[in-house]
Amino acid sequence: MKKLLALTSGLALSAGMASANAELMEMMNDPNQWVIQTGDYKNQRYSQLDSINKENVGDLQVAWTMSTGVLRGHEGSPLVIGDTMYLHTPFPNIVYALDLNEDGRIKWKYEPKQDPDVIPVMCCDTVNRGVAYADGKIFLHQADTTVVALDAESGEVVWSAVNGDPSKGETNTATVLPVNDKVIVGISGGEFGVRGHVTAYDMSSGEQVWRAYSMGPDEDILVDPENTTHLGEPVGENSGTNTWEGDQWMIGGGTTWGWYSYDAEENLVYYGTGNPSTWNPAQRPGDNRWSMTIMARDADTGMAKWFYQMTPHDEWDYDGINEMILTEQEVDGEMRKLLTHFDRNGLAYTMDRVSGELLVAEKYDPVVNWTTGVDMDPESDQYGRPQVVAQYSTEQNGEDVNSTGICPAALGTKDQQPAAYDPNLELFLVPTNHVCMDYEPFRVSYTAGQPYVGATLAMYPAPDSHGGMGNFIAWDNIAGEIKWSIPEQFSVWSGALATAGGVTFYGTLEGYLKAVDTETGDELYKFKTPSGIIGNVMTYTHNDEQYVGILSGVGGWAGIGLAAGLTNPNDGLGAVGGYAALSDYTALGGQLTVFKLPN
Amino acid sequence: MKKLLALTSGLALSAGMASANAELMEMMNDPNQWVIQTGDYKNQRYSQLDSINKENVGDLQVAWTMSTGVLRGHEGSPLVIGDTMYLHTPFPNIVYALDLNEDGRIKWKYEPKQDPDVIPVMCCDTVNRGVAYADGKIFLHQADTTVVALDAESGEVVWSAVNGDPSKGETNTATVLPVNDKVIVGISGGEFGVRGHVTAYDMSSGEQVWRAYSMGPDEDILVDPENTTHLGEPVGENSGTNTWEGDQWMIGGGTTWGWYSYDAEENLVYYGTGNPSTWNPAQRPGDNRWSMTIMARDADTGMAKWFYQMTPHDEWDYDGINEMILTEQEVDGEMRKLLTHFDRNGLAYTMDRVSGELLVAEKYDPVVNWTTGVDMDPESDQYGRPQVVAQYSTEQNGEDVNSTGICPAALGTKDQQPAAYDPNLELFLVPTNHVCMDYEPFRVSYTAGQPYVGATLAMYPAPDSHGGMGNFIAWDNIAGEIKWSIPEQFSVWSGALATAGGVTFYGTLEGYLKAVDTETGDELYKFKTPSGIIGNVMTYTHNDEQYVGILSGVGGWAGIGLAAGLTNPNDGLGAVGGYAALSDYTALGGQLTVFKLPN
Ligand SMILES: O=C(O)c1cc(C(=O)O)c2c(n1)C(=O)C(=O)c1cc(C(=O)O)[nH]c1-2
Ligand SMILES: O=C(O)c1cc(C(=O)O)c2c(n1)C(=O)C(=O)c1cc(C(=O)O)[nH]c1-2
Repeated sequence: MKKLLALTSGLALSAGMASANAELMEMMNDPNQWVIQTGDYKNQRYSQLDSINKENVGDLQVAWTMSTGVLRGHEGSPLVIGDTMYLHTPFPNIVYALDLNEDGRIKWKYEPKQDPDVIPVMCCDTVNRGVAYADGKIFLHQADTTVVALDAESGEVVWSAVNGDPSKGETNTATVLPVNDKVIVGISGGEFGVRGHVTAYDMSSGEQVWRAYSMGPDEDILVDPENTTHLGEPVGENSGTNTWEGDQWMIGGGTTWGWYSYDAEENLVYYGTGNPSTWNPAQRPGDNRWSMTIMARDADTGMAKWFYQMTPHDEWDYDGINEMILTEQEVDGEMRKLLTHFDRNGLAYTMDRVSGELLVAEKYDPVVNWTTGVDMDPESDQYGRPQVVAQYSTEQNGEDVNSTGICPAALGTKDQQPAAYDPNLELFLVPTNHVCMDYEPFRVSYTAGQPYVGATLAMYPAPDSHGGMGNFIAWDNIAGEIKWSIPEQFSVWSGALATAGGVTFYGTLEGYLKAVDTETGDELYKFKTPSGIIGNVMTYTHNDEQYVGILSGVGGWAGIGLAAGLTNPNDGLGAVGGYAALSDYTALGGQLTVFKLPN
Repeated sequence: MKKLLALTSGLALSAGMASANAELMEMMNDPNQWVIQTGDYKNQRYSQLDSINKENVGDLQVAWTMSTGVLRGHEGSPLVIGDTMYLHTPFPNIVYALDLNEDGRIKWKYEPKQDPDVIPVMCCDTVNRGVAYADGKIFLHQADTTVVALDAESGEVVWSAVNGDPSKGETNTATVLPVNDKVIVGISGGEFGVRGHVTAYDMSSGEQVWRAYSMGPDEDILVDPENTTHLGEPVGENSGTNTWEGDQWMIGGGTTWGWYSYDAEENLVYYGTGNPSTWNPAQRPGDNRWSMTIMARDADTGMAKWFYQMTPHDEWDYDGINEMILTEQEVDGEMRKLLTHFDRNGLAYTMDRVSGELLVAEKYDPVVNWTTGVDMDPESDQYGRPQVVAQYSTEQNGEDVNSTGICPAALGTKDQQPAAYDPNLELFLVPTNHVCMDYEPFRVSYTAGQPYVGATLAMYPAPDSHGGMGNFIAWDNIAGEIKWSIPEQFSVWSGALATAGGVTFYGTLEGYLKAVDTETGDELYKFKTPSGIIGNVMTYTHNDEQYVGILSGVGGWAGIGLAAGLTNPNDGLGAVGGYAALSDYTALGGQLTVFKLPN
């Protein structure tokens, strides 16, 4: 393989940036390493490596494998820093440092002691979306919300900080975002009435620097009522409380368990907030700001620059946490800094990431039926709001009424599984769900640390379609159009990887790693790994050879039936029934499979 | 690949044999299937398949993989019957039927409900050495000693029988032997004072037909005092009680947890019995017959034809249960029906399997030091007895004295990991341990269901050798000589497979599947599987292509530290310390990896 020159990013490094960040960005630009879960700060999940390409990917072989020693859902991916691979597991969140020069020999292993009481307060399996690297440290955010900085060489604990309280339903599944001299972390617990927040810790000391809640008083949510905007307008005072009835915002959800992006030039961090609590919309009148919102915040202060709430007053659990993919593309003849986001609600949004202007909002699965689409007329009082179809409004149908045939299901047209972007083709490669639901809200009362869900769900494949529960699609974010679509029997719960070789990789819940032609979607290779895949494909180089790595281990929300041994169709927040057939294809696991071309 | 003609065995089928057996033997002779854990009734673990051979084995690739959904030690192997693969797991002893025509889709899954209280009474990990097939049924012998017959097509339970009582320490890890119209099963619990026995159940009904204890009155041990022989002499009356003091034989051990062989012409079943209980020899004066004994019994009645006690009055826990490999070979110009056995005690025995005559008894690891060898002079009063070196006699050194530097360690020069036989080269391919020990016996009292061990052990690599804890060797059973030896860092705890392609396969505790030239021992291929290997390599054909399958999942006695999370060096009956470095190489797992040549 020819060595690739380090990619020089189009963006100049901003002056005030800490040197740790400069090093990290240089490493991100080196396609031989995989230094951050999201591939790079832009969440593009694109690799410049092209040794494995359309012509030869069909010859791919398994190079080596490793069991993580843990069962249940394995999300995220390993990192590769130099000759070391860092591998994490779901609860109990073991971290391995593997020596790639010695066939993956274990250099060190870190196994936190965590109270297993955290397991029942994790909504959607005991997943963890992986560790991060910066400044010689590996950052692990444990299920119990302990953030740990480990010396990357020795595995020794450098510092640890406690971000939340599992006894109140506060847990973690997300990776962290190292930015400048801080580590930015989220929190889970939207099904337990947790009020979501994002917190920055000092990278060297673990001291808390800022915290921004998703709802609450202005000083909690870090807005400037005059300068923080929503669709171009200042949010005004008390925006995080005045769309709530009474104190409901205190148990308002809007958790922050997704992927984080960063624009170094703007020094802005992008992420989305989750569903408002409870799932019974009648209990929380109002728009429930800022749940279901894309947020742009200053990395150093947490101050919000702009918000965009995609699903005001959610009635379907369409958490807005999916990744924000940052691109530079021409729109109407002008180069713009864009943010593209495939939301749970079935709409794909293209926005100007500097201003927060909404450019495109289109369904990325034609079966989406709860909305007729977003009002795009800036003059309309409905501007930027999805127009709700009454038949599928669980609020309008009322409590204790089963609203049937809603598409997508609560787990959305896409959930946490991250999409990839091919900058050459300007195409987004998107793992999707093709699932609909029945949803019956009911009244629920809040007790700290107890489920605060308030709806009974059933999920099933989108009716009158190909019969499967997923598609892997290519999306044009400017035209707002599907380019091609591959039907899949189950939701594609794995993160995609696009490569300069013209090949895009993804995994399936049955356990296949698949490689397709990025341009056409034609299948070029598939391999049955030990267990269902909900991890994200990554790639790296070792000794001048390109490798592709993927974690297997069925689970996550889609695989919760298998992962937690549930069989009642309505269990697992409604997911068990729809995915029951998964047990005909795969069993619990926890393995890394690494591929390469034959010698 | 050219289809191979069904091997016509040199033996005529005996007249009285049930038709189920005729079908089973025909299937065993079809190298395209793998119908019994041991490869065939002879325990040769040899395959006539030669598509994968010395020339091309270096190109082997992983074809597909499957997680079993269970962690800890995975012993045994899958079976292949036609287009179906049957896969088992350690406790809870799940059985999967996989459709090979549909990429291993799960046809059915059987998961017994077993009381987890059985786990702490399993001495050496929660292993199971696999299912057996006969007469349209899959036979599973669960950890809790329930024997279950499952319909091979549907997975429905046809019958089940209870063979023992875990509350008294009776458990099971062994596979069963289907013979004629019976299923023959053993029992574990030598570390709990269980009195071992072998039991035959009716294959269609599950009714018990006969049971033969290892010690006790003649009617319990099924001997004919006049006609059952030991080294050519009748055993005489009360042979199972008169070498014990008092009633000690009632808690005498001699469990039967190993592999079983069968000679259809003689209608004899061969197996070995385990250590006498307790491990403190001072508590059980006498030869402790018939612990540590090779037994030949009539398959239909259980009546013993001959016995050979290898280690009278054991002082080191050298269970005699290792497999008996049946061959027909020329000895001094005469074709003989032989039985070759690599005992834990470090001696490899070649016997006439019809008469029970001892032909060869030689050390198969030069470090063996507890004995100077077996007295082979039929005129001697020591005939057939190993001569004990006083320095290493834990009995002579006495209770509460630490006898140091004993070779081999309690887990023997070989433990349960079965050897293979290449009939062309007349070579045995033997996975071995290269481990020594310190052994300090102490007085212990018996309580049903409680450990009845009475010794503290420490294990370590054989001193003044290559530093590793294992060797993979080729053995000439007529000359009693090692032909070649491959040093390994850890004990080779995996069962070997020899093939007509001139290639022998085995797995390592670090997780490598290795292929070597059977003639020379030269390494031809290796691949790092997800977890340490203690399973046995098997091979089969599907759609005219040869496949090689192996279970990974570190554990067993050698891997008990990892498997059960033990760290005190003396824990795990002394094995934890010696194998501690394993955690630098591998983690818990449970996966099948299937290999084939590239297309
Ligand atoms: O509201 C929350 O706090 C929260 C947390 C999580 C999580 O932490 O994994 C999920 C969800 N919600 C959720 O709605 C969801 O669909 C989901 C899927 C998954 C997954 O990993 O498969 N987690 C979560
Ligand atoms: O005495 C017994 O009943 C008994 C049972 C077992 C077993 O069932 O696995 C083992 C042993 N002993 C034993 O001595 C031994 O070395 C051993 C190794 C293993 C293994 O599977 O790795 N089992 C056993």
